[in-house]
Amino acid sequence: MKKVSIGIDIGGTNSAYGIVDKDANVLYSGSFPTKNYPKVNEFVSALGVALRDALKKAGSVELVGIGIGAPNGNFYKGTIEHAPNLDWKGIIPLAELVSKEMGVPAVLTNDANAAAIGEMIYGGARGMKDFIVITLGTGLGSGLVANGELIYGHDGFAGEIGHTIVDINGRTCGCGRKGCLETYASATGIKRTVAELLANSIEPSVLRTIPYNDITAAMISEAAHKGDKIALEAYDYTGKILGIKLADAVAHTSPEAIFLFGGLAKAGDLIFKPTLKYFEENVLVIFKNKIKILPSHLNETNGAILGSAALAWKELVKN
Amino acid sequence: MKKVSIGIDIGGTNSAYGIVDKDANVLYSGSFPTKNYPKVNEFVSALGVALRDALKKAGSVELVGIGIGAPNGNFYKGTIEHAPNLDWKGIIPLAELVSKEMGVPAVLTNDANAAAIGEMIYGGARGMKDFIVITLGTGLGSGLVANGELIYGHDGFAGEIGHTIVDINGRTCGCGRKGCLETYASATGIKRTVAELLANSIEPSVLRTIPYNDITAAMISEAAHKGDKIALEAYDYTGKILGIKLADAVAHTSPEAIFLFGGLAKAGDLIFKPTLKYFEENVLVIFKNKIKILPSHLNETNGAILGSAALAWKELVKN
Repeated sequence: MKKVSIGIDIGGTNSAYGIVDKDANVLYSGSFPTKNYPKVNEFVSALGVALRDALKKAGSVELVGIGIGAPNGNFYKGTIEHAPNLDWKGIIPLAELVSKEMGVPAVLTNDANAAAIGEMIYGGARGMKDFIVITLGTGLGSGLVANGELIYGHDGFAGEIGHTIVDINGRTCGCGRKGCLETYASATGIKRTVAELLANSIEPSVLRTIPYNDITAAMISEAAHKGDKIALEAYDYTGKILGIKLADAVAHTSPEAIFLFGGLAKAGDLIFKPTLKYFEENVLVIFKNKIKILPSHLNETNGAILGSAALAWKELVKN
Repeated sequence: MKKVSIGIDIGGTNSAYGIVDKDANVLYSGSFPTKNYPKVNEFVSALGVALRDALKKAGSVELVGIGIGAPNGNFYKGTIEHAPNLDWKGIIPLAELVSKEMGVPAVLTNDANAAAIGEMIYGGARGMKDFIVITLGTGLGSGLVANGELIYGHDGFAGEIGHTIVDINGRTCGCGRKGCLETYASATGIKRTVAELLANSIEPSVLRTIPYNDITAAMISEAAHKGDKIALEAYDYTGKILGIKLADAVAHTSPEAIFLFGGLAKAGDLIFKPTLKYFEENVLVIFKNKIKILPSHLNETNGAILGSAALAWKELVKN
């Protein structure tokens, strides 16, 4: 029987899951709305139904374990702790709940750490010992690998580059502080930058015709591709802030490569060019022209699932 | 015969060395002026004479290896690369030169990494898997340990927190950029802060009577202890910048503790109190009241030697 793991990606809006074999084949995948389950026990029950169904559909497989990527995930404890974007408040022992529901071991980490493990096992970081994965979604997550091992830190919460400070008097962040990197470099961040540029400039822009709440990163990307100056400047500014803070990150762990993953990274050159430019302009001389800034090799649809599945292979299946 | 390693600390002005046993006893130590040897070969010859003499004086010992801490030290290559504070320009294969001179293996890393290994093996970080050592000397060095291993990074140059950016338009740094942390938080940094405060304030201060070039960190500390408001404010400001940037560092690797080592750390509460205060005020909520900011357990005189000697034990003597 083919051995498989299940990768689960918990998001504030939707949660995705997939049955994955050791060669990164997703045999079956699906998703359902996290938002519909304000109580975690109801979520776990519904998840169990979905996963058992998925396992049937995947055919003749042996489930070896479950990996979960979740916001504010604590690897050591298997808990989600005080996640601002989830309805489940306090400390949620999700790995234990899922393990009980499914009768196999489960392991959990934050979504960006899962993405880093996915990149290491299935993606562009195969063979690398030192790299960073940055996930550019609603917020900015990060997973750091050094000496071939993910850095969880002493409490399981390492890798919060999205909450390093760009400007101590800067934009209000969901974390309660001001000026965090993710208030600039994320899908939400670039939207805030657009609003700032609309205020400060008199340049015409299609983005002036859309209410703030309705603007998406995809719209900004589309406008930029059409030559909209506000949109182009927003990407330049986003890349500038990101490039400067990645230069700081590199001064900590000196990675071989930095992988950008997630919605904003899909904008391609629009985000990669300014990020690389300002990174090289601002990085310490000993790191210049050494560090690759690359798109993740995992696609966005399956990347989070693959990362979580890879976590299960890495932590639960000792070869 | 007692097994010993030699620890060497290369400084821009002086270099120190010591014969060290496995229990951190420094059997013999000495130093001589690096500045007198503008050619590295002459330095190594003189070092050889000094070390052979030191070994004789240490009595009946067996030398197992040599550890070297040096500015801009590359662990993987055993080289010093483009160190701005040394007369030896370019890339210097110092580990190889010293190994040939002494006939035993030699290993080299930057001075702050050596301090971190010293703290891990001989100091306050014994038993810790995740911690950071910050050396506050002329500049600011750092050594990061995660998962029980020093982070060298893919090129051997990890741990340059002194060159993360506080203010992109800030003080000119020796590295050629602007606003690096070490231009604020170091013996030189606090002196620059004093000068800025003397300019901006009309507060009387003993520091107004001393030429800039003659002001030392020790004078600022002495003035602060006597209640000099400029000196006190300089410590507060230094601790503020350091605390804020340590909050950023913690968001990368989530250490159990941060150890402060070196001249500026000797000021005790003057630097620790504001550093801790601003660190806690600015750190991400999940890290609050979790991370210890501690003085190094290695004394300044022997700390650098012990760190380098510990590097030799760790890397050259496999038990």
